[in-house]
Amino acid sequence: MTPFVPPHKRQAWQALQALAQGPQPHLRELLKSAERNAALHASGAGISIDYERQRVTREVMQQLLALADESQVMPQAQAMFKGEPINATEQRAVLHVALRGSHVPNPPWGHEISKQVANELHRVCTFAEKVREGHMKGFGGESITDVVNLGIGGSDLGPRMTTEALSHLTRDSFKNKVRVHYVSNVDAWSLYTALAYLNPARTAFVVQSKTFTTQETMTLAASAKRWLTDGGCPADQLGKHLIAVTANPHISAAQGFTPEHTFGFWDWVGGRYSVWSAIGLPLAISIGAFAFQDMLLGARAMDEHFLTAPSDQNLPLLMALFGIWNRNFLGATTHNIAPYASPLGKFASFLQQMDMESNGKGTHVDGSPVEVATAPVLWGGLGIDGQHAYFQLIHQGKHLVPMDFIGLRTERSPLPFAAEHHRVVLLNMQAQAQALAIGRTPEETMKELRDSGMDEAEVQRLAPHRSYPGNVPSTTIWVDALTPRSMGALMALYEHKVFCQAAIWGIHAYDQWGVELGKKMAKDIEAAEAARLKA
Amino acid sequence: MTPFVPPHKRQAWQALQALAQGPQPHLRELLKSAERNAALHASGAGISIDYERQRVTREVMQQLLALADESQVMPQAQAMFKGEPINATEQRAVLHVALRGSHVPNPPWGHEISKQVANELHRVCTFAEKVREGHMKGFGGESITDVVNLGIGGSDLGPRMTTEALSHLTRDSFKNKVRVHYVSNVDAWSLYTALAYLNPARTAFVVQSKTFTTQETMTLAASAKRWLTDGGCPADQLGKHLIAVTANPHISAAQGFTPEHTFGFWDWVGGRYSVWSAIGLPLAISIGAFAFQDMLLGARAMDEHFLTAPSDQNLPLLMALFGIWNRNFLGATTHNIAPYASPLGKFASFLQQMDMESNGKGTHVDGSPVEVATAPVLWGGLGIDGQHAYFQLIHQGKHLVPMDFIGLRTERSPLPFAAEHHRVVLLNMQAQAQALAIGRTPEETMKELRDSGMDEAEVQRLAPHRSYPGNVPSTTIWVDALTPRSMGALMALYEHKVFCQAAIWGIHAYDQWGVELGKKMAKDIEAAEAARLKA
Repeated sequence: MTPFVPPHKRQAWQALQALAQGPQPHLRELLKSAERNAALHASGAGISIDYERQRVTREVMQQLLALADESQVMPQAQAMFKGEPINATEQRAVLHVALRGSHVPNPPWGHEISKQVANELHRVCTFAEKVREGHMKGFGGESITDVVNLGIGGSDLGPRMTTEALSHLTRDSFKNKVRVHYVSNVDAWSLYTALAYLNPARTAFVVQSKTFTTQETMTLAASAKRWLTDGGCPADQLGKHLIAVTANPHISAAQGFTPEHTFGFWDWVGGRYSVWSAIGLPLAISIGAFAFQDMLLGARAMDEHFLTAPSDQNLPLLMALFGIWNRNFLGATTHNIAPYASPLGKFASFLQQMDMESNGKGTHVDGSPVEVATAPVLWGGLGIDGQHAYFQLIHQGKHLVPMDFIGLRTERSPLPFAAEHHRVVLLNMQAQAQALAIGRTPEETMKELRDSGMDEAEVQRLAPHRSYPGNVPSTTIWVDALTPRSMGALMALYEHKVFCQAAIWGIHAYDQWGVELGKKMAKDIEAAEAARLKA
Repeated sequence: MTPFVPPHKRQAWQALQALAQGPQPHLRELLKSAERNAALHASGAGISIDYERQRVTREVMQQLLALADESQVMPQAQAMFKGEPINATEQRAVLHVALRGSHVPNPPWGHEISKQVANELHRVCTFAEKVREGHMKGFGGESITDVVNLGIGGSDLGPRMTTEALSHLTRDSFKNKVRVHYVSNVDAWSLYTALAYLNPARTAFVVQSKTFTTQETMTLAASAKRWLTDGGCPADQLGKHLIAVTANPHISAAQGFTPEHTFGFWDWVGGRYSVWSAIGLPLAISIGAFAFQDMLLGARAMDEHFLTAPSDQNLPLLMALFGIWNRNFLGATTHNIAPYASPLGKFASFLQQMDMESNGKGTHVDGSPVEVATAPVLWGGLGIDGQHAYFQLIHQGKHLVPMDFIGLRTERSPLPFAAEHHRVVLLNMQAQAQALAIGRTPEETMKELRDSGMDEAEVQRLAPHRSYPGNVPSTTIWVDALTPRSMGALMALYEHKVFCQAAIWGIHAYDQWGVELGKKMAKDIEAAEAARLKA
């Protein structure tokens, strides 16, 4: 094994540093070259990106690609796909890619894993269809009509976000007899409001926890059981209403979850990468097994693109490199995700976990402290709402906030004026990307104000407040339409982007030791409190 | 008028800079002084804050308070309350405080404004009760059962957030015969899903727009009208289903909104500070007029606290000063809002607009460019969910992220185990605040791993990954319970915090020129497209 080299010691890194310190053209200038703009697009797996509004020159692109090469990003990716224990602090493989590739001939991770994945996927799909068709019966023999998912973090965000993103399938599918609800927060109000209008005889709970010891989820599960028994469910019939998804089935079994109602996954699936596993069960119930499998195929298409596309056409790698350029060389500390499609309302929240829990690290793989910046603070939400809320700061505040605009080429709501709505949405997205890039100089502003007939004193007074520095970099990500396939590809795009950035920064993306201290501290406080009460 | 002095030229600012550059004790050390910790609390208007986990020494606190003094924060506040045109680029007064103080004797803003406010508040409250009691009738004579709010930004976030925060009142109020829905995004899917299960004969729309020209909202309103007529409403009966809230009633009148269904506010109410005005109508319908007025009283209590409490006990001022210290002297670029109460799920989104649209500025009040940092990127969401998502980055990433923890002293869900849920919620909040503050040194980590029986090579290998730098500053904000009164006080606390920071930074908090360029760019693109089609 070659000795670890920290990123800032790499040649390309130093070349990029020199470029960033030298004179850099404003986006206003860069965008004047039609030839340049026409070249800065790439596509794959049904997704395409426009990146002419990244602050990259030909030289910068060359060095970014050289950095990827020097950092051995693609060899590291191949090690992941082969199942090598790249999650080294936990000595585990990282194989969420196998979850969507069990049908692939000669899988790099081996046939044994594909077989396990295919078996469990088959169980999940069969069960989801059974529930959808009303064949899951509660203690009184009635069909289950409502499924409540209890899980937090990775056991919540992925299925919840995709259920909302693909809700048109839930609504359009007349075969589906059940509604799916999500409760993640242990706050009693959260569970209470979810259950307020449900009937215990017709409600089932999916309890999702990799360890099956997560305090929040187990507290919710205990209250759910109490609600069922208070609602007339005999204690020996509780199993009819309880479903477990866990990598620790011996623990769920000890709590009365039946083998038929227990779905598994493996220690090589990280929580934030688990929606492709049995953790996706509530989603599969919501949109159906075929749609769920389509989502896996979309992700697989992105996996193939990632492994095979040349570097300068490779979507996850390109997006990773823009992120590195903006964060490490242009000094951006945050990154905004702005989908212009209301079903993607929870996409930024989902990515917050994926990105910040993966790359919010300060220690290199060799144990040395990281001296450069790692994951930015990722934030955002629906872009058009953001325009009326926080875009002010991006336009005129004291931050450089790189943006990902996400647009749909087609939108198909059955509303008479849907096309006009969609036109307004895309118009706004394009206008924002352009306004943020080119800005408006004080001179342009003064001219505009004068032209409007404003008197000169007012022009002088107001122009500074009404000018815009611009030069805000953005990528526009185009998705044809919100389908299970495109959602799978979109999520996998970001997963591999996060992977590439970790590979360049030289950090572990698949552990999360940062969450341990708070848990330990909670136990310490509990123990101290117990001792105090005893004394 | 004294000439403008930029913040970094002030004596206290320079003293703070010297302090920040000198040796600063780690929070781990600061927190060892029980005497210090006991002193760092303040309360007012039913809210109390613990700030012993801010990285402030006695000297830092002295200079921060001196900075507030030098910056004339309180005289500036008095100018606002008096109705002086402190929104100078738009030459307007800023009087959202009058909206909750129309009952105050000898109001600083004058009786005329109080009278206008009281009149309109009375109209809003009377109308809200009429709707709640089922006395608003649709075209077929049936009672309205569903009210859909169409508005974006300030016409959405405030009422939507508070409706969710106070939803226990909606559910508990048996008198209330209507449900309130919110649609902000112009994406057709958003409107379609809101309307899918509603009956046009029993649905009313509240169209909220200060100018009544907001493109997104007007597009939604046009589709809403179409949906009503497609649902059988005769064109001449549309007015029965439409309610306008606007500062431009002549525009809404031209679109067929009746005078009885039109509610007004004034140019001295900014969108992001407008929930206290008729913009709160959907909230008043949801929780009732008395509860809405209680919320105003809670905000008024905070206004009084702000105007009268001594600086070192003044909640908004203290929170503003911690923000300044963290942002301008300790280098934090973002700020995380972490409520530990699920009904506050949208509080961070609401504050994003209030804070970033107000203080995301780069130009001083005198037109000179700001050379220091202004508003941080504000982000967050429910704290306990964040623990399982992005807290990793706050614990171990390459950022300093100051936190506001928000906890409820009491929670009253009618769930059998509610007390246990609440114990887990508060335990986690306290554990996170403490873990983030004190961290765990590599030495402590090594000892812990050795004590667990780990072999020495593994201890050496893992300790760097399992250590925590700590020193993350936070304030814990305690609210007795989620009541209209406490929500009013909590929102006003943040409003005045934002005001104080703007006063210190020397920027205009009440304009938002940053949103103009995108709108103009959209019009330009539209015009170019029209010209292209014509050619």
